[in-house]
Amino acid sequence: MILRVDRLQTELPPPSDPDPVGAAAVQELLGGKFGEMSTFMNYTYQSFNFRNRQGARPFYDLVASIAAEEFGHIELVSAAINTMLTGAADGEPGASGALEGVKGTRNTQQFIAGGAGALVQDSNGRAWSGDYVFSSGDLVEDLTHNFFLETGARNNKLKVYEMVDHPAARALTGYLLVRGGVHQVAYARALENLTGAQLMKLFPSPKIPTDKIPECRPHIERGEHLKLYRFSPEDYKEIVAVFKGPHPETGEDLVVADEAPEGFPWPEAPPEPDVFAPDHAPDDIAEIAQKLRKEAGLD
Amino acid sequence: MILRVDRLQTELPPPSDPDPVGAAAVQELLGGKFGEMSTFMNYTYQSFNFRNRQGARPFYDLVASIAAEEFGHIELVSAAINTMLTGAADGEPGASGALEGVKGTRNTQQFIAGGAGALVQDSNGRAWSGDYVFSSGDLVEDLTHNFFLETGARNNKLKVYEMVDHPAARALTGYLLVRGGVHQVAYARALENLTGAQLMKLFPSPKIPTDKIPECRPHIERGEHLKLYRFSPEDYKEIVAVFKGPHPETGEDLVVADEAPEGFPWPEAPPEPDVFAPDHAPDDIAEIAQKLRKEAGLD
Amino acid sequence: MILRVDRLQTELPPPSDPDPVGAAAVQELLGGKFGEMSTFMNYTYQSFNFRNRQGARPFYDLVASIAAEEFGHIELVSAAINTMLTGAADGEPGASGALEGVKGTRNTQQFIAGGAGALVQDSNGRAWSGDYVFSSGDLVEDLTHNFFLETGARNNKLKVYEMVDHPAARALTGYLLVRGGVHQVAYARALENLTGAQLMKLFPSPKIPTDKIPECRPHIERGEHLKLYRFSPEDYKEIVAVFKGPHPETGEDLVVADEAPEGFPWPEAPPEPDVFAPDHAPDDIAEIAQKLRKEAGLD
Amino acid sequence: MILRVDRLQTELPPPSDPDPVGAAAVQELLGGKFGEMSTFMNYTYQSFNFRNRQGARPFYDLVASIAAEEFGHIELVSAAINTMLTGAADGEPGASGALEGVKGTRNTQQFIAGGAGALVQDSNGRAWSGDYVFSSGDLVEDLTHNFFLETGARNNKLKVYEMVDHPAARALTGYLLVRGGVHQVAYARALENLTGAQLMKLFPSPKIPTDKIPECRPHIERGEHLKLYRFSPEDYKEIVAVFKGPHPETGEDLVVADEAPEGFPWPEAPPEPDVFAPDHAPDDIAEIAQKLRKEAGLD
Amino acid sequence: MILRVDRLQTELPPPSDPDPVGAAAVQELLGGKFGEMSTFMNYTYQSFNFRNRQGARPFYDLVASIAAEEFGHIELVSAAINTMLTGAADGEPGASGALEGVKGTRNTQQFIAGGAGALVQDSNGRAWSGDYVFSSGDLVEDLTHNFFLETGARNNKLKVYEMVDHPAARALTGYLLVRGGVHQVAYARALENLTGAQLMKLFPSPKIPTDKIPECRPHIERGEHLKLYRFSPEDYKEIVAVFKGPHPETGEDLVVADEAPEGFPWPEAPPEPDVFAPDHAPDDIAEIAQKLRKEAGLD
Amino acid sequence: MILRVDRLQTELPPPSDPDPVGAAAVQELLGGKFGEMSTFMNYTYQSFNFRNRQGARPFYDLVASIAAEEFGHIELVSAAINTMLTGAADGEPGASGALEGVKGTRNTQQFIAGGAGALVQDSNGRAWSGDYVFSSGDLVEDLTHNFFLETGARNNKLKVYEMVDHPAARALTGYLLVRGGVHQVAYARALENLTGAQLMKLFPSPKIPTDKIPECRPHIERGEHLKLYRFSPEDYKEIVAVFKGPHPETGEDLVVADEAPEGFPWPEAPPEPDVFAPDHAPDDIAEIAQKLRKEAGLD
Repeated sequence: MILRVDRLQTELPPPSDPDPVGAAAVQELLGGKFGEMSTFMNYTYQSFNFRNRQGARPFYDLVASIAAEEFGHIELVSAAINTMLTGAADGEPGASGALEGVKGTRNTQQFIAGGAGALVQDSNGRAWSGDYVFSSGDLVEDLTHNFFLETGARNNKLKVYEMVDHPAARALTGYLLVRGGVHQVAYARALENLTGAQLMKLFPSPKIPTDKIPECRPHIERGEHLKLYRFSPEDYKEIVAVFKGPHPETGEDLVVADEAPEGFPWPEAPPEPDVFAPDHAPDDIAEIAQKLRKEAGLD
Repeated sequence: MILRVDRLQTELPPPSDPDPVGAAAVQELLGGKFGEMSTFMNYTYQSFNFRNRQGARPFYDLVASIAAEEFGHIELVSAAINTMLTGAADGEPGASGALEGVKGTRNTQQFIAGGAGALVQDSNGRAWSGDYVFSSGDLVEDLTHNFFLETGARNNKLKVYEMVDHPAARALTGYLLVRGGVHQVAYARALENLTGAQLMKLFPSPKIPTDKIPECRPHIERGEHLKLYRFSPEDYKEIVAVFKGPHPETGEDLVVADEAPEGFPWPEAPPEPDVFAPDHAPDDIAEIAQKLRKEAGLD
Repeated sequence: MILRVDRLQTELPPPSDPDPVGAAAVQELLGGKFGEMSTFMNYTYQSFNFRNRQGARPFYDLVASIAAEEFGHIELVSAAINTMLTGAADGEPGASGALEGVKGTRNTQQFIAGGAGALVQDSNGRAWSGDYVFSSGDLVEDLTHNFFLETGARNNKLKVYEMVDHPAARALTGYLLVRGGVHQVAYARALENLTGAQLMKLFPSPKIPTDKIPECRPHIERGEHLKLYRFSPEDYKEIVAVFKGPHPETGEDLVVADEAPEGFPWPEAPPEPDVFAPDHAPDDIAEIAQKLRKEAGLD
Repeated sequence: MILRVDRLQTELPPPSDPDPVGAAAVQELLGGKFGEMSTFMNYTYQSFNFRNRQGARPFYDLVASIAAEEFGHIELVSAAINTMLTGAADGEPGASGALEGVKGTRNTQQFIAGGAGALVQDSNGRAWSGDYVFSSGDLVEDLTHNFFLETGARNNKLKVYEMVDHPAARALTGYLLVRGGVHQVAYARALENLTGAQLMKLFPSPKIPTDKIPECRPHIERGEHLKLYRFSPEDYKEIVAVFKGPHPETGEDLVVADEAPEGFPWPEAPPEPDVFAPDHAPDDIAEIAQKLRKEAGLD
Repeated sequence: MILRVDRLQTELPPPSDPDPVGAAAVQELLGGKFGEMSTFMNYTYQSFNFRNRQGARPFYDLVASIAAEEFGHIELVSAAINTMLTGAADGEPGASGALEGVKGTRNTQQFIAGGAGALVQDSNGRAWSGDYVFSSGDLVEDLTHNFFLETGARNNKLKVYEMVDHPAARALTGYLLVRGGVHQVAYARALENLTGAQLMKLFPSPKIPTDKIPECRPHIERGEHLKLYRFSPEDYKEIVAVFKGPHPETGEDLVVADEAPEGFPWPEAPPEPDVFAPDHAPDDIAEIAQKLRKEAGLD
Repeated sequence: MILRVDRLQTELPPPSDPDPVGAAAVQELLGGKFGEMSTFMNYTYQSFNFRNRQGARPFYDLVASIAAEEFGHIELVSAAINTMLTGAADGEPGASGALEGVKGTRNTQQFIAGGAGALVQDSNGRAWSGDYVFSSGDLVEDLTHNFFLETGARNNKLKVYEMVDHPAARALTGYLLVRGGVHQVAYARALENLTGAQLMKLFPSPKIPTDKIPECRPHIERGEHLKLYRFSPEDYKEIVAVFKGPHPETGEDLVVADEAPEGFPWPEAPPEPDVFAPDHAPDDIAEIAQKLRKEAGLD
């Protein structure tokens, strides 16, 4: 089971100029074949389906804990998309023309089905599918898949970084590139331990050095490229048996962090009355909420 | 972000007689339109896309925390499926006929794509889809959806309970029916607070009384039908402003539990060498793992 | 717009021995690429998208009216499926094992998602898709498509006839084969009028003579193979300009019937309490209905 | 079975300035999860699969007759899309550049697959799916679903109204909002009769008052918000047992209209030779049609 | 089995001004329902599933050999798309903004998932599906389907020709229209031989005369509209028994060419470092390749 | 472009006892995510989208030529499925009950949509999708993908080998395991040349030694595990620059064969009149064919 912490793994900027066309592209990092839904769900189901868990514990712990980090990634991509959509349409709720500004946007469902929010779709507006989950039960295969998946994910993050220059998208991809790199290293190390295969030499792939990206550098400076967090109060302690040794690019020592990162508050997501989020008259809900809080002695 | 706890929310029995045909039916509760992937992902994305969070905090906290509980449910369904598939084929790895016993099973991919494991599919072998997520941003709509979703989920759990009498399936559905009932009540209460609408009168739907199901009774006796867990170390404290008052069937007081349940260990999932899970020769991996543990000073 | 008549176009037998495996096969005739959903929706959307309607009225009238007949066909296939599923599981609602008899059936969703009812799926349990609709706007192309669609539909009806010998399936396919044949002739005649192409010579395709099928013969004897009904109180009167001349197999005159057939009552569909259709305790609903009727002066 | 009437339920304006980008958005109301295909098909299949019809007749009659009205709605949305696409490209058939003006439009298949016509797709160009049909057989569940479906549909209609200001789109959404409201009320009343639950208090949802929309007002003035048509020559007479009492917003009496509305002619859909609809040389077809009419004595 | 020849069936121009929006439209001819993947795969699987091959050899040879030609068509469409995307974005690899120029393009996956390359998708960004393959085993049905498929393909090619005036698209559609016409004639002739039906009279469909298209004329002048190539070193020699007689438009004699066309080199596809195709630093790969060539004595 | 040779790459046994349930499982090797359609189409599109072809020629030649071999694999799987379905139903065409024997089979569409033939589907009856194609343009990524794809393919072949003991399935999987192994080696060698990464150490994966499988041994004895065929009359000559060195299991030298294998005739595929393949009365077609042959001077 999980415990949820109402904070994000990295800091995202507050809403600024909206960029709905960019937000449609960022959807690839959420619901695309190589998006964060895929990394999250692949590692999650591999951990559920792990057989002989006790016999192969360090590998189980590695996969299960990285899965937990990935939840934080779907959260981050969704937050960035919401930020980029904030203010995109600014009309009066219920008025003709209120959403005219986004009539020609690439993903109209972000406004029609959603409330200026993230969808479980890719950049072409197609839904994420359970078919994207690979969970063969064969440990070497699953790890080979995971290394490849992180490679594809890195490719897509780089492309979205190049394509969308909205501050939220840049902060997002800068962070994800660094963290995804750690996962590539982790799966490569696991495979090396099991088979002797040297996938580290494929790193980084695509070969753009991570520290070339300005938005990655602050994270590298804080050592985020070396650290695998153990996202659990008590469990997954055998990760250290696999995740260690030198980083393939820098030679620095890989480390397992015994705690989740402290995190950052979500960026503000103000109401969007013209898409009824959370209502066409948000103050009404706020008033009810205030009354309920009072009754419950929370205020 | 989340922290992961390597325990299940309820106890499942260990593997006994395999039931692959039953396991194919249980997939509906995982990857079906009304399966646990849907409840998990709907509430998760609604929480990500929640606008004016601060203004409507009690409702945000409710949705966000129920989302966290649902992760535990995809875990449980997956564990039950693995249990039901354990031992279904028992041949020598790499030998013709090793899997002949499951050639005619309803979902061959549980063995060909998976390693006698759960798939992100429904009972007809079709993948779960991001299209099943409804996240309109409109709070009343999202809650109306959630009430309906839990209603459909309850229907499907009852049907699977009636269809599959494997001990793991019965333990699973018995628990999920009770917990799903709590969520129906929670969303009905939220809607009542916002609009005055009395959806409680639709409860239970389908109208089979939960305590008629023998596998539900032990959970009811422990008060699981009254309790909403706050699945978080520190957050989501305003749930209490919404989840309170009498239970619609029993009149007992609803309560918010300030901690996640203690949980139970996963049922054993022994290796299945004939599907290479985790390997055709599982002892090899266990040996490597043992060596790594030793090197890391874990043993 | 449409007016609905609560009768079926042909007589179907009442429920007898259930045949859920056969019912799964019959789904192909409902939601398959060449099923009745496809014929209904193809002709319907072609009529909606018909340009220069006035200039090409006889062709518009033909397509629009055949569309109306096809609604009756999705009705018939659904009725047959419901009939075949009646009594398939016969357990006590809410009891473990109540649906055990259908655990191994080919389409578990007929019971889990449905209430022993028809789904909008094909015989492999996949949903009908709007992609099956061809509506190019080019009249000759649309008619060529329609001729081909009816050919594929005839093929599938013959195969289902050969595969499923339940009385409801035989009554269904016997009728549909005759009516589909009339539509093949109609589209061939239309194309002949527009281009001179002699598609009649492809008739029947597959080449099994319709009157070889015993279940077709009563319909042929009543002249159903010659008659195109004008399914409208007042409209589509120019069909006669296209649908005329000799039948390609028998040489008899084709005729346009100026009225819809009188029809037959639906076969009985008794409650299935174990799948909660319409409820686990159907008498409760009947009682409420009775009270409402009384209040409304209907009784 | 059905009878078809070649008229629309409301008046739509004739083609004016084309708006292909708007037409792509309007597709959501046709083939989206909450589009008219969904309302039409959900109620239709629920009526086909209705068990114990006689025992629960007033509810059956209600669902079956609303299904019939919904056919008129897919008709209306399709007509509006055709109107909005008329004249969008205006080139010479077969000439390079003839369709260049729509190369960058949001849904190229409206021109490549279609003939400047409606597709069975949503606003992201994805096909409508039979998976959108919910037909559980459980009457309370189906009605709960229907209420929720109408709520989602209302949300989408409002959003499209806000997004697309083409006269055809405004006339369309104005009418559909009023009629969808009647269906919300109908399903809420049915549920109230069966369970006592007061879903009326959720009305309207989204909470924008319908009479705030100028395009809705003429329909409200004619009482269209109070009236449920019995779309049948003879059947479905027990609707009156359920659909009665005061309208939740206005307090006026709900009424069952014993006849379908008189209707309006389809807006003109002139040929589009550059997409070969109905031909690259439409006069040729008109000439053939004229000849056929003459031969049949229709002229 | 096949042998591959590294040449294209017709000449395509080298990259010029990029046209990513046009390239998104051209995808319809690759992965659309009527695209070249469909013609290729339909005829291929019909040949694999052909029963009584020896007894019906001339028809088998016809279908099997046309399948081989179609491989060349997916090649051509892909080459044209690559050409149209060349240079569309021209930024520095790894730099923010490098792909900004294509952020608003219709198919972002051509750049995010692909490397400025073709996808197996249609013009709305949806994947080609195995469902598009019709292979009933019934020879008359399969041929009727093929005639209809070529008709739809011709329609789409004409539309894309009208929509996209990029030189690569025009060269592509000009060639494909001529070759598709030959296949329409071939299937019509086959059906005529089997049934006497005169589908030739439907030709051309859409009725735009092929020689009206300037880009078709050079191919017609070389007799490409009359010639069916036998794409095989030794096999499929019985095509001549079916493909003969006069061309339906011109009356000239149809001919079977005993050899594949000589072909043309692929248009240049220069590296696109900003999408890492084949690398962010293409010279590195070229250097390795050069070293390998030398070691292998190829240089 | 391609030339087609009407022979199979290996010998398959003639039809014997039918095994439709096994044939449904074998579909995974055709239309599954890791089936031969996927290997064929992945390498094919990667070759179409290859940028800087001249600069990286040895790698292009490798991918392009392996693509050509894979066509032979979709052929083989299809032939095996047809063989396994031959005689599965043996009734009189057009007679009720003719297909009753396969009513309960796992994939009814093999008989309803097909003529006892292969479908472009996986073992759960779902269509192959263009989404399974990965073609990023980044050479290292594409090769990493291909190595992983072959690994997954090997897993599935082994599972199907274990599951289905029909002689055609065993002959098929025995051959494909050996050939797939060669492709794993080829892609590993290519990656080693580009990056130094040692993926060879992952070989074989799954770790079952290929020569443990009796059906693989004859192919190994003929050296098929060492040989990469150049499937082209003249092209792809630079493969030798990459495919060389020792085999990772045996240490023997890898070799490039300069010609395609000689091949074997297709196994007999007799008519199946009850599914109208190629007709309900196959002699009629044979007679027409004979007449056409004679007219063409072929007999």
